[in-house]
Amino acid sequence: MAEHQVMVAPEYLEEFIKELFMKADMNEEDAAFHAKALVNTDLWGVSSHGCMRAPAYFERMRNGAIHVDPDVKTVSGSGALEVMDGDAGAGIVVGKRAMERAMELAEKYHIAAVGVRNSNHFGAGAIYARMAAEKGMIGIAMTNVLPLVTAPGASRPVTGNNPIAIAVPTYGEFPFCLDMALSKVAGGKLTLAIKRGEKIPLDWATDPEGKPTDDPNLAFKGFLLPMGGYKGLGLAYVVDILSGVITGGVLSHQMKSMYANPDEPSLTGHFFIAIDINAIISKEDMAERMKEFYDRLKETPMWEENGEMLMPGELEYRKEKERRQTGIPVPIKTYEELIELKEKYGIKAELPEKK
Amino acid sequence: MAEHQVMVAPEYLEEFIKELFMKADMNEEDAAFHAKALVNTDLWGVSSHGCMRAPAYFERMRNGAIHVDPDVKTVSGSGALEVMDGDAGAGIVVGKRAMERAMELAEKYHIAAVGVRNSNHFGAGAIYARMAAEKGMIGIAMTNVLPLVTAPGASRPVTGNNPIAIAVPTYGEFPFCLDMALSKVAGGKLTLAIKRGEKIPLDWATDPEGKPTDDPNLAFKGFLLPMGGYKGLGLAYVVDILSGVITGGVLSHQMKSMYANPDEPSLTGHFFIAIDINAIISKEDMAERMKEFYDRLKETPMWEENGEMLMPGELEYRKEKERRQTGIPVPIKTYEELIELKEKYGIKAELPEKK
Repeated sequence: MAEHQVMVAPEYLEEFIKELFMKADMNEEDAAFHAKALVNTDLWGVSSHGCMRAPAYFERMRNGAIHVDPDVKTVSGSGALEVMDGDAGAGIVVGKRAMERAMELAEKYHIAAVGVRNSNHFGAGAIYARMAAEKGMIGIAMTNVLPLVTAPGASRPVTGNNPIAIAVPTYGEFPFCLDMALSKVAGGKLTLAIKRGEKIPLDWATDPEGKPTDDPNLAFKGFLLPMGGYKGLGLAYVVDILSGVITGGVLSHQMKSMYANPDEPSLTGHFFIAIDINAIISKEDMAERMKEFYDRLKETPMWEENGEMLMPGELEYRKEKERRQTGIPVPIKTYEELIELKEKYGIKAELPEKK
Repeated sequence: MAEHQVMVAPEYLEEFIKELFMKADMNEEDAAFHAKALVNTDLWGVSSHGCMRAPAYFERMRNGAIHVDPDVKTVSGSGALEVMDGDAGAGIVVGKRAMERAMELAEKYHIAAVGVRNSNHFGAGAIYARMAAEKGMIGIAMTNVLPLVTAPGASRPVTGNNPIAIAVPTYGEFPFCLDMALSKVAGGKLTLAIKRGEKIPLDWATDPEGKPTDDPNLAFKGFLLPMGGYKGLGLAYVVDILSGVITGGVLSHQMKSMYANPDEPSLTGHFFIAIDINAIISKEDMAERMKEFYDRLKETPMWEENGEMLMPGELEYRKEKERRQTGIPVPIKTYEELIELKEKYGIKAELPEKK
């Protein structure tokens, strides 16, 4: 075990976080889903959006920035397209209800979309995209994010890294699941380069004036660059439009940060699409065709030593198998915060270190 | 006028190509739409997908690779999701019918999708995405493409550059229109670097073994790299799945090239989505909110001299205004081919050079 982290079995972590959120008066069903979503995210290896965020979510539930009993409801739309107001609920609870609604509409119409306004940080988009894939549908989830990505030539951030997640049922070992932020890299990559004393590629980030830099220290004070240059930038605008413009929510520069504005709702917008492909292809055919698609990719010759063609979602699948054995590495700082909360709020669940 | 091209007024070009396609027994309505789509593409500045391709399309209509009177019909699906068989029709004709069907379904259900199998090269995706935007809908169009993009570490192409086009009504001077191939750059950029004797960035393309190279000559014999690395690669797989897997069409490695296989249907697949946002936002509100969204972006300070924040579709808008004045630059080789076809098939329309 690394000294800066504590390994905890996922079952314990899930039970603990569920009880934690219930201490903020969240009902058991929502708390259970929220906790499971965070633990799953950790299992997939996406630690930045996993249990590490639980103390901040909890604090926001306590101070009212996140409404623990939100009145999430459809406010406009008809047929297969609706907009829901999240009533400042937990993004993961609001996102679940909106994706469930999209899936319900998709059962009837075979494709459906639900936009959301007035929500909060919804964690990993994969949570919702995978919900659809588990039901044999293609799921698409996206969210707007506070501006932190700049445009080439510009001197301030113009859009968020607006993640898009897309999951497809394969009926194999794991679903196809692409979950990507639209910045070239995550901010954590800059921190890592600083720690290692390495230069960074010029297309990762800019200095505080928006100019290209290979110095991670300058980049850390600057802005991220979009993935794929103008292409990724354009795609981030599309997410802004679907999540913020057409939903009647706020534009990204009017959003609040869950950390910089700890006691204010973030006003986040999301957009979910569910495609019930069962209307056009049987489960058996889909399984066979996805296998054919994968087989062709998997047999690709590689020049890279130990190179391997990985499908989107495959790393997460392997990581989950591994972490179900080893436990989830909880950063020591998070672990201590959780133990402190346990004492302060009388949480009965334990967080034993996995040996 | 540059000596390697002839400037032709768009009206003449459109009339000429319409008559050309009618000489291949295409009906007037389809020929008119196809010709207009190619001329519009040239007006937007996307010459690679404009009239330059008309002689090849014509040849394919003549030899039967493209059916000029295809029986395009829905073969599966219900509600707001359908799959159509293109019956080897011209991609632009099939694409038009599929997007029209998606829009028809979206009028009823507010979001709809139509997948297509057994089609041909559909030109620029913007053609279809813009059809929706003109009717106040958000339009999304994508198509699979023969493998020409490799994965990092791999030794053969694994997917196409699978373009995605997304258009949004703004009710302003021009629609938002993002139309992007999912390779980092188009092959033309390599040719240009060769001509200029310049090195290329390592993320553009690989050598014939799939290894990174900065030599455009090697890259020209190698494979393109996806935009945004694994992110763009994953997105290209999504296009493969939506266009090829779930439609029951062929996978990308089973497709035929319109140039390498001139007398065979390409078996191309497409996927179209139409979102009738009028169900959730009024035209007036949409106009106002898109203006607010644009205004915020437009006021971004730029460090780059003469830097300017351009919206997706804005360059195309400017180019169209310019080319309506100057005429469309037709490569001399294409011009000569067209004149030859005029003589051979007795086309009455003229192609006068614009002075």
